[in-house]
Amino acid sequence: MPVGTAGTVKGVHQMELIHDSKAQIILGNTYHLYLRPGIDLIQKAGGLHRFMNWNKPVLTDSGGYQVFSLADNCKLKEEGAYFNSHIDGSKHLFTPENTIDIQRTIGADFIMAFDECTPYPCEYKNAKKSMELTHRWLQRGIEQFKNTRPQYGYKQVFLPIVQGSVYRDLRRRSAEIITSYNMPANAIGGLSVGEPTDEMYAMLNEVTSILPSDKPRYLMGVGTPVNILDSVGMGIDMFDCVIPTRNGRNGMLFTRKGIINIKNQKWSDDLSALDTEGSSFVDNYYSKAYLRHLVVSNEMLGAQIASLHNLAFYMSLMSEIRTRIQDGTFYQWKHDMVNLLSQRL
Amino acid sequence: MPVGTAGTVKGVHQMELIHDSKAQIILGNTYHLYLRPGIDLIQKAGGLHRFMNWNKPVLTDSGGYQVFSLADNCKLKEEGAYFNSHIDGSKHLFTPENTIDIQRTIGADFIMAFDECTPYPCEYKNAKKSMELTHRWLQRGIEQFKNTRPQYGYKQVFLPIVQGSVYRDLRRRSAEIITSYNMPANAIGGLSVGEPTDEMYAMLNEVTSILPSDKPRYLMGVGTPVNILDSVGMGIDMFDCVIPTRNGRNGMLFTRKGIINIKNQKWSDDLSALDTEGSSFVDNYYSKAYLRHLVVSNEMLGAQIASLHNLAFYMSLMSEIRTRIQDGTFYQWKHDMVNLLSQRL
Repeated sequence: MPVGTAGTVKGVHQMELIHDSKAQIILGNTYHLYLRPGIDLIQKAGGLHRFMNWNKPVLTDSGGYQVFSLADNCKLKEEGAYFNSHIDGSKHLFTPENTIDIQRTIGADFIMAFDECTPYPCEYKNAKKSMELTHRWLQRGIEQFKNTRPQYGYKQVFLPIVQGSVYRDLRRRSAEIITSYNMPANAIGGLSVGEPTDEMYAMLNEVTSILPSDKPRYLMGVGTPVNILDSVGMGIDMFDCVIPTRNGRNGMLFTRKGIINIKNQKWSDDLSALDTEGSSFVDNYYSKAYLRHLVVSNEMLGAQIASLHNLAFYMSLMSEIRTRIQDGTFYQWKHDMVNLLSQRL
Repeated sequence: MPVGTAGTVKGVHQMELIHDSKAQIILGNTYHLYLRPGIDLIQKAGGLHRFMNWNKPVLTDSGGYQVFSLADNCKLKEEGAYFNSHIDGSKHLFTPENTIDIQRTIGADFIMAFDECTPYPCEYKNAKKSMELTHRWLQRGIEQFKNTRPQYGYKQVFLPIVQGSVYRDLRRRSAEIITSYNMPANAIGGLSVGEPTDEMYAMLNEVTSILPSDKPRYLMGVGTPVNILDSVGMGIDMFDCVIPTRNGRNGMLFTRKGIINIKNQKWSDDLSALDTEGSSFVDNYYSKAYLRHLVVSNEMLGAQIASLHNLAFYMSLMSEIRTRIQDGTFYQWKHDMVNLLSQRL
């Protein structure tokens, strides 16, 4: 899922998302949308899809991660999280209940539970306490979800989130509780927050051994192409990440031959096409030297080209992953791809 | 002509320029291109058209305006202008001769003379001295142009520039000298640099009474839609201006009903299409409230949408101007349009 924080995937037109990157769903951030443009306007528009004219699915996070990482003066209580807007300092409270209401109003197809995302490192005692709070919040969120209805005439589903930091027993406990709610899909949060990749993978192995394999498993906020390949290998189905757009804006391009840092001097007079194996129009329309010039000169078009390239790359990677799983060649192919995609060109 | 300063019209893909804004020619800045990416790379690419993959005409300015307004430590001598790059402080010299060579290498279809653009206000004595220097530089530039050849197999033409600040006699004198060179098109510089609009129009009236009407007359760096309508009324044929893109990035939209400052509170919940009379895909795809949200949130897509809208508006305005001139209804129509386009919505 490309990340469309504030109702826009940065630097990319909605039509480019559909036609060039082939995105089938995007993620919106409840925290950002709630603060700006605000829920009243989104409701008046008939939901986020209509507001931004995006006629495909949307998943919203619950805002949990953002209130703890972005907002000012965040205070955690049993009832929820008090915080000040990072934009104008205004005071707000997010609860397991009102974040459901907000996501109902946004019109998200996939609604996420309100959770506390532990930082890394996190002591066992704190991780356990935080996980238990997340579980109590989950119970309240599910109640609220059951007691409310979609506002725009289409179905919305609710996803609970496994927490537990980097502790195997906590992760297993959390995965068991999440599974017990029997939701149509399940998410894994609190990873890729600074821990070594091996620790993340160890947690994934625990969690995916418990979360049912016949329901989508969504790993939140991950990751690099290699992270995605490895995680799919462990049974993950869905991802969201800002890497294709954020790293793109900084001149990092992912290709089937490896990673290009377009700012490097070595590309300065390379007039070959951006990526002859790429699936977006930018890949054969613009050259490496031209993109380098744009990025070095801080020209908007540089960010636009790199973002669209990376999104198209991610989407085509996911598409091939699906094909490889279906034809039974995934693991061998993944092994080769991980080596290729890790390379720095 | 949309302005593509450093080989890109800010925020707009080349394909959008062609298909959505219907641009037929763009302007490149010699000063910017010379400093970055540099002439060697552009030559290696086979010219700017190929470097940026733009298969339509390009006009380059000579860099005169930029060395005086943007560069550091600009020192004017008879031989040319010494300056330091605003990017890395490196020392350079632009002369009437080497700016022709540079534009030859860029591969501009229209090459501009190297001139001194007087600031406003400017004393008569200084304006006269500056104009005379510009005329001596013109003579040298024409010699250089005649003694050099296109590098990429297509024709290049050279345009001299009328100067003379806001002094009628200087403008007439300059226009006579420029006319005497019998070039395929003629330009008017040094206007729209801070003088009252009436003074600009008074100068245009002098100059257009002298520059031959059967050759394109190009008014450099102008202007608003109303400036363009008025100037066409006085016989101007060509314009370049950053207003559609720069003002667009700041949330100013030009429409057939008047000017919209999309940041104004009044648009905050206006969910109607951006501009139902607009000719670009963005006009009916996005709403005013959505664009306002993007611009207020400083999202790249806001600048992309507003730039494309404004460019398409300018192009459709020029297109209708042409039609109105041909069918003899220009002046009456212009009168109505000037009133409409001046309105603040």
